[in-house]
Amino acid sequence: MKVAVDAMGGDKAPHEIVKGSILAAQQFQDSEILLVGDGKAIQRELESYRTIPKNITTHHASQVVGMEDPATYSIRQKTNSSITQTVGLVAKGEAVAAVSAGNTGAVVAAATLHLRTLKGVRRPGIAAPFPTRSGVCLVIDVGANIACKPIHLFQYGVMSTIFSKCIFGVKDPRVGLLNIGEEDAKGNDLAKETFALLSHSQLNFVGNIEGREIFDGKADIIVCEGFVGNVMLKFAEGLATGILSTIKAEAMKSFWSKLGLFLCKPAIAPLKAKTDFAEYGGAPLLGVNGVCIICHGRSDSKAILNAIRVALQLSKNKVNEHIVSELEKADASASIVM
Amino acid sequence: MKVAVDAMGGDKAPHEIVKGSILAAQQFQDSEILLVGDGKAIQRELESYRTIPKNITTHHASQVVGMEDPATYSIRQKTNSSITQTVGLVAKGEAVAAVSAGNTGAVVAAATLHLRTLKGVRRPGIAAPFPTRSGVCLVIDVGANIACKPIHLFQYGVMSTIFSKCIFGVKDPRVGLLNIGEEDAKGNDLAKETFALLSHSQLNFVGNIEGREIFDGKADIIVCEGFVGNVMLKFAEGLATGILSTIKAEAMKSFWSKLGLFLCKPAIAPLKAKTDFAEYGGAPLLGVNGVCIICHGRSDSKAILNAIRVALQLSKNKVNEHIVSELEKADASASIVM
Repeated sequence: MKVAVDAMGGDKAPHEIVKGSILAAQQFQDSEILLVGDGKAIQRELESYRTIPKNITTHHASQVVGMEDPATYSIRQKTNSSITQTVGLVAKGEAVAAVSAGNTGAVVAAATLHLRTLKGVRRPGIAAPFPTRSGVCLVIDVGANIACKPIHLFQYGVMSTIFSKCIFGVKDPRVGLLNIGEEDAKGNDLAKETFALLSHSQLNFVGNIEGREIFDGKADIIVCEGFVGNVMLKFAEGLATGILSTIKAEAMKSFWSKLGLFLCKPAIAPLKAKTDFAEYGGAPLLGVNGVCIICHGRSDSKAILNAIRVALQLSKNKVNEHIVSELEKADASASIVM
Repeated sequence: MKVAVDAMGGDKAPHEIVKGSILAAQQFQDSEILLVGDGKAIQRELESYRTIPKNITTHHASQVVGMEDPATYSIRQKTNSSITQTVGLVAKGEAVAAVSAGNTGAVVAAATLHLRTLKGVRRPGIAAPFPTRSGVCLVIDVGANIACKPIHLFQYGVMSTIFSKCIFGVKDPRVGLLNIGEEDAKGNDLAKETFALLSHSQLNFVGNIEGREIFDGKADIIVCEGFVGNVMLKFAEGLATGILSTIKAEAMKSFWSKLGLFLCKPAIAPLKAKTDFAEYGGAPLLGVNGVCIICHGRSDSKAILNAIRVALQLSKNKVNEHIVSELEKADASASIVM
């Protein structure tokens, strides 16, 4: 199985991307890693290793999409970008999966354009892992689709249930609907209509989930529209980083609190590990015809290694085939009104 | 000036509400506090004090709205509830302001129904203080209005600018629009159209604000639709509480980390104070014809005291009159297309 990795995407590219890809090539020897990007830059990185695994190859792409480039611009003006080429290899069947830590909007646009959606899927959605008190939950969508309809949210529930089973090994994932109250009839029209679809489905729907219940781990999957999910994801990141840096800065002001912080480290470590996005290896763009993993812009080699692992698992477990057949079943079910 | 306080609202009612009201009555001796609720219960509380300030009186209301009661039910079935009566006193001109830590939905419904909106205001919005690295910012709306139009968000910007100036003393509040990217053309239709309105206005509009920039304090005011604001507010609360309790639980497992946590306390204190909602005394429901402060369900006497202080400041500074005249000016401005 071949995985195409965007070597130029992310703040730490190409160094950490190449490093993570080498680790993956060593760990998954029956697979092949295609490093996509500036041939010379990749070569320079590779040369710094004593031995280069045989199952790693380079695919040249002359352009790079900037982190701030608008998605439409990247699609129209940078047709030979590492993102477009990475996704293109999957579209052409030369790789089974694409992994990129580059501009999320550009990856979504390229994947939607070149891979198209799976049969029956209305809109792709990004399923991002959020840490909880007891583990992790998936929030879908975090920004692929900001014009959501109830049917999109319903399909997110179906797709991420399959993902959660296959990748996280959750037996019967609890699906919650992000809402502003617990009662059934709460929320805007989108929430109310989605509630009706989910409660008549075969999914393990646990009802509305309020913002404050996410960290409590009341659901394994939380569906929401992309605008809300995106705001929440970034807000959580800003808040967590902000809280920790503020405490650290304050602690540095005195010897005793500095010592205190040092002694606290073992208590903070489990939480830190839990909130480390690198552990989860990125977020899958579910619903496109091919595997596409979107990594955090700050991804290091560990995150890339884990993303490649998830990409291979998705392919091996035929998650996309399962999605198509589950959506067919849901379509056939009389209770689902599209 | 008379302030009506819902003595039965919130998890710690009536004890902490009565305590906070007594503190306020002592501090603001030229004002009067009307304690609204079960006369006997309030009397019992008052009797536990050696002296009761003369500027505190009781107004009986036989019913209590539960924290989980749907807003419509509370309006229709509990017409003699402490919430309805508290707001009703303002509607009848017997008090200038209403303060409640009760069911937020019920307070919003009662205030919208009985006070009506100010001249020119399309929809009221709740402006909630969010802690930032450097202080505080106001997020409006956090749940009063979940069917937002661009003009509503624009008016939120106008109303909270006046509030921020009068209550927080911010000279020229920076208004940001919550969005999923920094570039002008980002977001859903609501965000794009609101961006246009705000950028052609007289407000100190600083552009789009992403979720991760909120804690950085990039804006003094962040406008967003009520669904997103509500989810974010509750998510932040759950996350902050969750992070701290997780660290605490971990720290308790060993002597050294327990000691570390103890030594860290002074470093955590400033952050704790900043995130203490009681400091800000609740969130105003801006846009209704009267002053209405919505307090956190867990409000203690300090929160109630501060909420009464804010309520009095809003009345004394004639914030509502300013809102009406500013909106008239905005209406007159040719650049604003409603």
